[in-house]
Amino acid sequence: MAIHYPNGKKAPLHDANFQPKKQVQAVQFGKRGMSFEEKINRSNEYYLTQQMAVIHKKPTPIQIVQVDYPRRSAAVIREAYFRQASTTDYNGVYQKHYIDFEAKETQNKQSFPLRNFHEHQIEHFRQCLHQGAICFVLIWFSAHHLCYLYPAEDLLAAWDAQHKTGKKSISFQTIAEKGFKIQEGYAPQIPYLQALDQYLQKKE
Amino acid sequence: MAIHYPNGKKAPLHDANFQPKKQVQAVQFGKRGMSFEEKINRSNEYYLTQQMAVIHKKPTPIQIVQVDYPRRSAAVIREAYFRQASTTDYNGVYQKHYIDFEAKETQNKQSFPLRNFHEHQIEHFRQCLHQGAICFVLIWFSAHHLCYLYPAEDLLAAWDAQHKTGKKSISFQTIAEKGFKIQEGYAPQIPYLQALDQYLQKKE
Repeated sequence: MAIHYPNGKKAPLHDANFQPKKQVQAVQFGKRGMSFEEKINRSNEYYLTQQMAVIHKKPTPIQIVQVDYPRRSAAVIREAYFRQASTTDYNGVYQKHYIDFEAKETQNKQSFPLRNFHEHQIEHFRQCLHQGAICFVLIWFSAHHLCYLYPAEDLLAAWDAQHKTGKKSISFQTIAEKGFKIQEGYAPQIPYLQALDQYLQKKE
Repeated sequence: MAIHYPNGKKAPLHDANFQPKKQVQAVQFGKRGMSFEEKINRSNEYYLTQQMAVIHKKPTPIQIVQVDYPRRSAAVIREAYFRQASTTDYNGVYQKHYIDFEAKETQNKQSFPLRNFHEHQIEHFRQCLHQGAICFVLIWFSAHHLCYLYPAEDLLAAWDAQHKTGKKSISFQTIAEKGFKIQEGYAPQIPYLQALDQYLQKKE
């Protein structure tokens, strides 16, 4: 059966945003195994309730094919497919700034592979920067247990250079130098607004 | 079977964002019956390609329960439910401004009923305005074939007043006075950035 997607691309077999139900429940009991994404989502909730920023994760785009409407209960989607997102995962507003970012994890110790990005995410950053947006990546180095806010401008420079230099990653050292370190905390767990303040100060 | 949603609310039986497949196809043939939402989506595509603004509709939030992974083909979602969105439908960046809006249609001639909004959308506007965002509603009066950009500040004033005055709608006259008229066009079909420019000029 051929499924035609609106953007002409096949839906990915595995979707980073999809979380099976049991995983979601596991998170609720004792916060074991909380993913980087989940920590960011909770940090965003914290920032929202503290009236510090309004930043949300975008829902995973789904192509719905068939829906059942059972009597006296909620509509059930019976056939649907994951679609490729045309933007990054997070956006919102912080002190008049339009904020746009992606969250990425790597197990690598020495570098951050550029294959973590899709062309459309890079293109979206480019479009946003053109409008004066504040764009970055939150990179989690799981081996080092370290988090950095890395500006999209620097990411784009590395992305564009790879076709000339063949360098398919950004070294950990470069990220530590050009990026802004985020110390994991309790509330919020990923206090990225502090790093963002430093980045905004440097930009001005 | 009890389904527990993350926000503790039942999924709505009908979701404004859900479009059956046949409707999407109908739009492609001769543009008959194109919905207001579809016109806005196309206007956003126009603005994006013309590098005038980066504004996207957020995907409908879906709670996924069961997914099949057939061999050699895309993952199929077999059980999922519509969730209540916690934000408005559209956001993005325009000339450094964070833009956030809802699109609403009414068949009413004399007024725009406030029941078109959910409490959480109003709350989201309040949170965004607190951060210095530009928030509004695009209202389509189908009987008049007229479109207005109506500032969120004025909407919130009407929303808050209804509990005292009992007035559950905003009169067409008020919207025509305080709002910014949008003349339907060809490319883009809903040229709302022109109205937005007027609104921004008035705000400054």
